[in-house]
Amino acid sequence: MSIGPIAFAGAGLDRADQIRSDADALTGLMDWRARLLRLDGLDPVIDPDGNLAWGTLADAASDSELVFLGLTGGKACFAEVSPALLGSVAPANPRLWAAMSALEHAELATYGTARALVDWHARHRYCARCGNPTVLAKGGWQRTCTNNVCKAEHFPRVDPVTIMLVEFEDQLLLGRQPRFPPRRFSALAGFVEPGESIEEAVAREVKEEAGVTVRDVSYVGSQPWPFPSSLMIGCHAHAMGRDLEVDRTELDEADWFTREEVAHAMSGAEDGRFIAPPPQAIAHHLLKWWLEK
Amino acid sequence: MSIGPIAFAGAGLDRADQIRSDADALTGLMDWRARLLRLDGLDPVIDPDGNLAWGTLADAASDSELVFLGLTGGKACFAEVSPALLGSVAPANPRLWAAMSALEHAELATYGTARALVDWHARHRYCARCGNPTVLAKGGWQRTCTNNVCKAEHFPRVDPVTIMLVEFEDQLLLGRQPRFPPRRFSALAGFVEPGESIEEAVAREVKEEAGVTVRDVSYVGSQPWPFPSSLMIGCHAHAMGRDLEVDRTELDEADWFTREEVAHAMSGAEDGRFIAPPPQAIAHHLLKWWLEK
Repeated sequence: MSIGPIAFAGAGLDRADQIRSDADALTGLMDWRARLLRLDGLDPVIDPDGNLAWGTLADAASDSELVFLGLTGGKACFAEVSPALLGSVAPANPRLWAAMSALEHAELATYGTARALVDWHARHRYCARCGNPTVLAKGGWQRTCTNNVCKAEHFPRVDPVTIMLVEFEDQLLLGRQPRFPPRRFSALAGFVEPGESIEEAVAREVKEEAGVTVRDVSYVGSQPWPFPSSLMIGCHAHAMGRDLEVDRTELDEADWFTREEVAHAMSGAEDGRFIAPPPQAIAHHLLKWWLEK
Repeated sequence: MSIGPIAFAGAGLDRADQIRSDADALTGLMDWRARLLRLDGLDPVIDPDGNLAWGTLADAASDSELVFLGLTGGKACFAEVSPALLGSVAPANPRLWAAMSALEHAELATYGTARALVDWHARHRYCARCGNPTVLAKGGWQRTCTNNVCKAEHFPRVDPVTIMLVEFEDQLLLGRQPRFPPRRFSALAGFVEPGESIEEAVAREVKEEAGVTVRDVSYVGSQPWPFPSSLMIGCHAHAMGRDLEVDRTELDEADWFTREEVAHAMSGAEDGRFIAPPPQAIAHHLLKWWLEK
């Protein structure tokens, strides 16, 4: 059994990667038919029908860079990296969540891809190897160093993150990060580090954050998460015991929750022991999967 | 059923992440007892007993940066980012593979972690946001921009890569990359892009590289791969048909192989239709898993 359709996955665009490296084809697509995703900073602009708002390339500032998102219905879709964005880091905010809730599945995925790419370009203006400026290349799927001695190629970053349900005697280990809304608990999570497998990252994070040793780590499902550009890797593991030693620098709190408590929170109720993560988050789908399995 | 112990996973070191952010604890560990991994460029140095060779911090150049790898038996282990390495990119080479074959499992994992981190530091000397120099921070698990207006924090990169066995009527789709040794075929693979799940990345790559549509993508196992720092995510999928349209810019060749042909190659034989990937590669473990399932 796997998790169902998940927010930010399932874009309706054909990424058409063969066009990225074909300068003539790419230029040929950049005409009056091409669509430009409208963004308010990094947030989406929603049209009166509740869809993503699109303009044309004529709407782009003359000093903007353009990212090729892909093709839909024969039309090329682009997003703009405007100079106003440069260097910014914009966290997800309540207004953004409301806008995103309005979007249907494929549009949310297109927006997520655009946001992750535009944000990466805005924060990667210089070559990490030599410090010289870089320029957009391959339709925005690369940046290249302008220093002719260096010429380093840089690629959009995707950071793998493990997020895991840890189970012991039919109870689940959930935690509260300091940045969570009041009473929200969710699955523990952490970045995969150089030199470790997914399974090792899961075991290390649970040990670090909650002092719990796990066995039998298994994969459940994945999700792209554009804040700024993570790959969420949802897993399940069994705990070797229920004693907790919570790392208070990472978590405000962590505890075990019964099946009934999880089911109550997942029903949308806010009067139980905790409030469940929102449907856009893979943690929500992991909890649903656990209740149904 | 999952894949067995795999090269570069399973390091014997405790990463002791709480020490990374604790400057006093870190300084306290940097004494005469600390061990410094000996490296020849980015390659390992093997001692007469066939183990990784270690020195002390006194062996490090005065202008080197030190990366804290973790603890073993109460001793802190470090690796050196020497100025001589800066900006280098060193691909895996035959001499390196011979050296790595000599190492036992946990030592190979420690080496892989050290290599990925040292290589990242060598190629990330400047701030991608503002172009100013960066300095090592948190025991080498971060670099921080020296420009007081920027102060951007940069973290070691891990690039998720999908690698997949595609099956149709008990035959497997394997391909030959231009850089492979003669007659070597292996599983198709490609980087996960911003805005896609693992399952979507698998489907896109197989479509792009071989023209094949897949269904029912499932996860098999994962591996850290330190060339330079990938997370290999091994998957299985079913093809919807056997017609191929191979992208010759990505692959020299791709074709279907029977169970007998795969078993013959995996026995080590070199007189069959193809030569199997080496045991260090997750592709080898995926093929073994497929034969046994």
